[in-house]
Amino acid sequence: MGPKDEKAHQTNTKGRMIPSFLDGRELIPYRSYLGIEPIVKREVGRVTRWRRPGDSKVVNTIDEALDRCGLSDGMTISFHHHLRNGDRIINMVMDRIRSRKIKDLRLFPTALFPVHEPLIEALKDGTISSIEGSLNGPIGRFVSLGNLDRPVILRSHSGRVRALSQGEVKIDVAFLSASCCDPLGNANGLMGPSAFGPIGFGYADALFADRTVIITDNIVPFPCLPISIPGTNVDIVAKVDSIGDPGGILSGTLQITDREDHLRIVGSTIEILDLIGLLKDGFAFQAGAGGISLAITKYISDLFERRGIVGSYANGGTTEYLVKMLRNGTLKTLLTGQAFDMEAIRSLREDPCHEEIVVDQYSNIHTGATTTEPEQAAFLGATEVDLDFNVNVNTHSDGYLLHGIGGHQDVAYGSQLTFITVPLERKGNPIIKQRVTTLTTPGELIDIIVTDRGFAVNTEHVRREVRERNLDILSTCTNAGLPVFDIEELRNMVLREGGSDMEARTGDRVIGIIQYIDGTVLDKVNMVLE
Amino acid sequence: MGPKDEKAHQTNTKGRMIPSFLDGRELIPYRSYLGIEPIVKREVGRVTRWRRPGDSKVVNTIDEALDRCGLSDGMTISFHHHLRNGDRIINMVMDRIRSRKIKDLRLFPTALFPVHEPLIEALKDGTISSIEGSLNGPIGRFVSLGNLDRPVILRSHSGRVRALSQGEVKIDVAFLSASCCDPLGNANGLMGPSAFGPIGFGYADALFADRTVIITDNIVPFPCLPISIPGTNVDIVAKVDSIGDPGGILSGTLQITDREDHLRIVGSTIEILDLIGLLKDGFAFQAGAGGISLAITKYISDLFERRGIVGSYANGGTTEYLVKMLRNGTLKTLLTGQAFDMEAIRSLREDPCHEEIVVDQYSNIHTGATTTEPEQAAFLGATEVDLDFNVNVNTHSDGYLLHGIGGHQDVAYGSQLTFITVPLERKGNPIIKQRVTTLTTPGELIDIIVTDRGFAVNTEHVRREVRERNLDILSTCTNAGLPVFDIEELRNMVLREGGSDMEARTGDRVIGIIQYIDGTVLDKVNMVLE
Repeated sequence: MGPKDEKAHQTNTKGRMIPSFLDGRELIPYRSYLGIEPIVKREVGRVTRWRRPGDSKVVNTIDEALDRCGLSDGMTISFHHHLRNGDRIINMVMDRIRSRKIKDLRLFPTALFPVHEPLIEALKDGTISSIEGSLNGPIGRFVSLGNLDRPVILRSHSGRVRALSQGEVKIDVAFLSASCCDPLGNANGLMGPSAFGPIGFGYADALFADRTVIITDNIVPFPCLPISIPGTNVDIVAKVDSIGDPGGILSGTLQITDREDHLRIVGSTIEILDLIGLLKDGFAFQAGAGGISLAITKYISDLFERRGIVGSYANGGTTEYLVKMLRNGTLKTLLTGQAFDMEAIRSLREDPCHEEIVVDQYSNIHTGATTTEPEQAAFLGATEVDLDFNVNVNTHSDGYLLHGIGGHQDVAYGSQLTFITVPLERKGNPIIKQRVTTLTTPGELIDIIVTDRGFAVNTEHVRREVRERNLDILSTCTNAGLPVFDIEELRNMVLREGGSDMEARTGDRVIGIIQYIDGTVLDKVNMVLE
Repeated sequence: MGPKDEKAHQTNTKGRMIPSFLDGRELIPYRSYLGIEPIVKREVGRVTRWRRPGDSKVVNTIDEALDRCGLSDGMTISFHHHLRNGDRIINMVMDRIRSRKIKDLRLFPTALFPVHEPLIEALKDGTISSIEGSLNGPIGRFVSLGNLDRPVILRSHSGRVRALSQGEVKIDVAFLSASCCDPLGNANGLMGPSAFGPIGFGYADALFADRTVIITDNIVPFPCLPISIPGTNVDIVAKVDSIGDPGGILSGTLQITDREDHLRIVGSTIEILDLIGLLKDGFAFQAGAGGISLAITKYISDLFERRGIVGSYANGGTTEYLVKMLRNGTLKTLLTGQAFDMEAIRSLREDPCHEEIVVDQYSNIHTGATTTEPEQAAFLGATEVDLDFNVNVNTHSDGYLLHGIGGHQDVAYGSQLTFITVPLERKGNPIIKQRVTTLTTPGELIDIIVTDRGFAVNTEHVRREVRERNLDILSTCTNAGLPVFDIEELRNMVLREGGSDMEARTGDRVIGIIQYIDGTVLDKVNMVLE
């Protein structure tokens, strides 16, 4: 085997075959859910920012910003996704870059949304030659069909910051939208007509990028308060007419569910939490943005209000349901990395016990603390789960890479009890597989799978530290007559009723890599054959 | 000349003779007030923090903390000074270190106060073999008399952070007091019975130190809000009975003046500001903690209230006088790096337009922005000034090194108009010298010297960019009949009345080095002969 034999393969401890080398890089196979020790010491950037006092940072067009930051072929550029499907910055910047015929860029976004479909043109004409970051929807489909020569690298939110802090990825220019910014580059996303909430997904980019450009439609006199991104890490402030439509942050996954099968999942989850005694003063939890998660938050909120319980804190992805808890006194404190609606933004401005956090604080395991670790329970989704409790959130069963990792691994790693809440089947396709199509989160980190027709507790494949606890949960639930099943029995319910596994038609070519939070490789994603 | 010939000397652009090498290090001579370009890219630490989830950070004694962080001979340790003369941490930690017979430590504090006099014992017995940081009072006297073998290095607040961010100084263990901390190390100085205000002088230490120990008398459940120092940068949380007496932050220099000569200086300064048209809406300024500075703030506050003027912001060192301006609407925003009284602490907790900042944001010139740069005027003190407007704040005319640089260079560099407010003489010793005993801040950065018997405008030795403006100020003041003099004439007033220069009796040995904010060397300090 040659030193960079692109045909060589290796098998990681989860039994996944992955390339030994890919796109010129050596891949380190996944070892354990605990993660490997940091390979390099925290690099935290080797950046020089320096200007003569009085030199202005402000420019009035994206073109001037591109001139000043010296963007050229082969560089790495980054964006944050706080405006979600309302973002105008990525398309705006890419349009000007394409007009300059700059080629071979590496795109390093925190996430992409359907609104970014025009990027496909930049992928086709070679402006962008590789992507490291979450692909959602149309761009995922485009990449899945083998239309990009170089494989995409997917990392969790915190895995991305870890990669930056260890020099695994170097950003040449970060383009960061802000709803409020002063002429020295002190910025936030909380104030101004386009306020979108925290800006913590862009914080590390500003810190580590060689050049940081804040793009804003709202320049205010110094000092812009609060300072979420300090001007110390900013080189250029570009004024534009509009950074986007904050209404677009209320996208797809942010509707509370009213589907009967979903509500059965919610009810079952609350029942388990209550039975095992977690729903009491001091409860700490995280629920994401999916319809089921929103409903779980609302149910907890209602129950706490009825019983007079006061929770300790929640980690957001924050919605009106969490804000309501903070304001009616059923929750003491709220930590927010992303705002999912307007109430979350308002509350961040107004409520003293509601704090904006950056991704490094949220869940980077190569730091001294995470805000996920004190969580007593977390509620996450999945596209598939398997008999070993491994979870897939990236690909659908047909093989298409349509979702990022988001915070899935981060939360599962940190939270003391991790629930996966999923329907038992989708159109006859059982969600519980022999083996997940793509491995996103190791089963060791998953404790309970709750479906609309029963749930399973992970006592066999779970991390050793909590096996006894999970055995207790299993027997408590069994004794209480709750619908607890062996996970294979849940799968068999669907098969017995005529359901069958959707098969992915994929080729040999690797179009993507799934990293674990520590930088090791969990799985590859293969090209879909149409 | 050998490569590290300790006898070799060089002369910097200010005509100061400094050693070429000192204590094994090559000294870079001062070149210009604009500073040199960063010699190395911003290092921002190469730190690994990593722990297994669930591992506790909390220890109950300083000894346990020392065990865990592996403190040993020759290491560099650091402390912040937010508790000022009320601090108990430094003596407490040094006591335990001495009992372990650890030797040859480098002490890297942000400042030392009279309360730290017991450190002299640790200097005598070799526990501490060198100091890089401000020396105040008794330790300065001890060092001045040649009692420490290795020379001390003095840096401004921001020069210290620059040194950290460029790897010039590496901290092995940072011991940082906090008045509120959770078990994961998220900490602040705002809450709890020993609240002392911002903790921004410790922020860089936590970021760059190999090991960070938070020492607190108030552990609260996660999450400690607000998070001023994130637990991501903390390894150990040590619980002690008391971190100190917050009353001690109200030390020496924090009494507003009522001396008649001082009030003449204040009146004159306000008169100049008013005459040149700065006292209007949008005024941005910084006044320190000395009695004269406090009075200037109070006069500005009263005048703004009478005239209905609204200032833009002030940079603090924050006192009740600035808080009053914020609260009565004569100041829009307040940025605070240090709290100088209880009102400042309370306001930071309560007032939304009052923000805590860290030193890197305040004035590190090797970043993309400082909060001093937008200041229209700043008011600083001096022990001596010379005919070239150079300022000494470190030594007294008798040669004793009794004060740190503090933010003197930082503010003079950033502020658009820098006033030095000083009495014309101290006990017959003229404050204006032919040549300052020690060069702390280059005269290029100083615009106006205001004394109790007249003032001088720097038109000749000032930075080129503002020479025209200062000529305008000079003629405006002259035409208005204000007591403006040539600086030499101010000196001669004292000499004519029988005053004479106090002479420092110093030897050849260099006991200290004064760095400029960029890391170049402005001056040396020689041993005092008793």
